[in-house]
Amino acid sequence: MQRINIKTVERSELVDITDKVQSIISGHKIEQGICFIFVPHTTAGITINENADPSVEKDITDTLSKIIPDNAGYSHVEGNADSHIKSSLLGNCLPVIIEGGRLCLGRWQGIFFAESDGPRSREVWVEFIKK
Amino acid sequence: MQRINIKTVERSELVDITDKVQSIISGHKIEQGICFIFVPHTTAGITINENADPSVEKDITDTLSKIIPDNAGYSHVEGNADSHIKSSLLGNCLPVIIEGGRLCLGRWQGIFFAESDGPRSREVWVEFIKK
Amino acid sequence: MQRINIKTVERSELVDITDKVQSIISGHKIEQGICFIFVPHTTAGITINENADPSVEKDITDTLSKIIPDNAGYSHVEGNADSHIKSSLLGNCLPVIIEGGRLCLGRWQGIFFAESDGPRSREVWVEFIKK
Repeated sequence: MQRINIKTVERSELVDITDKVQSIISGHKIEQGICFIFVPHTTAGITINENADPSVEKDITDTLSKIIPDNAGYSHVEGNADSHIKSSLLGNCLPVIIEGGRLCLGRWQGIFFAESDGPRSREVWVEFIKK
Repeated sequence: MQRINIKTVERSELVDITDKVQSIISGHKIEQGICFIFVPHTTAGITINENADPSVEKDITDTLSKIIPDNAGYSHVEGNADSHIKSSLLGNCLPVIIEGGRLCLGRWQGIFFAESDGPRSREVWVEFIKK
Repeated sequence: MQRINIKTVERSELVDITDKVQSIISGHKIEQGICFIFVPHTTAGITINENADPSVEKDITDTLSKIIPDNAGYSHVEGNADSHIKSSLLGNCLPVIIEGGRLCLGRWQGIFFAESDGPRSREVWVEFIKK
């Protein structure tokens, strides 16, 4: 298992980690298989979306904060109940197909670490199964 | 990696692709393992739900559109910010167990391509790892 | 494929199944690979979140019920349209990395079966691929 270290700067933000994941695949010379990208935190998640226009990232984090406000009379008293809920909605693990030594992503797709309780030092774990 | 081609007809709809995925498994004589179904688009997703009563599909797409309206002052100016957000909420990749040459699904489950910015020509990518 | 049987007691609740999944991994002496945890139901899902403070579980189920109310003029007439929608939002399958014979989870993470239409007798299916 490989680790990617991330330092987030906002409370909520999407951080593009596509190149870092591809580096691991390239470094291990994985030609064909599946890559698993796992977030070991309970107030952050992982998602795939457009990495061309940054306004898409902003719309995703803003809309999540609108649906799940940060102060809505939650039971959890640490002030980040909303972050936990966002984590479960986006999910913690992404499998991505590898072919020809490359992550198989669509033309507009990037892999994003979804911070919901930053700024923090975070980790992403990467594992792969060869075909 | 195998490709499934889909033509969607509505802006938002669920398209049952269970039989198409099963055909790929059967064609490759995969007896046991994991199948990965991946959507390479940023305004569509993939989900498993009931494929008996079509009203369930309608409730899923209608409710998503209620939670994430199509015109809510988004930053992204292409008119499909809502579609991007729906894509991240449903997710882009589904692993499904294969046993005895069949996708292991519950009695009421089907695999759906979730269009959120149609009508369009779309692709779904299918890969598998044998056990 | 291994089966975990669950009896839920509430309409909506998170049931921690981390130990049961780990028992299967340990029993099969899987040292390294990926574990797939699959829910074969259309009104329940699977999620990873904090298993230290139970108020987090309550906030997740309560907030989901607020976003997706149980009586909102749905088309599906069985009274559980909301449960189907929640199932698609949380998802049905989780891949988790295995290393050194253990599920690789973050310090605060547990694996939860997410009941949305209980009380019911439920199943969770577990499969693994060795690395």
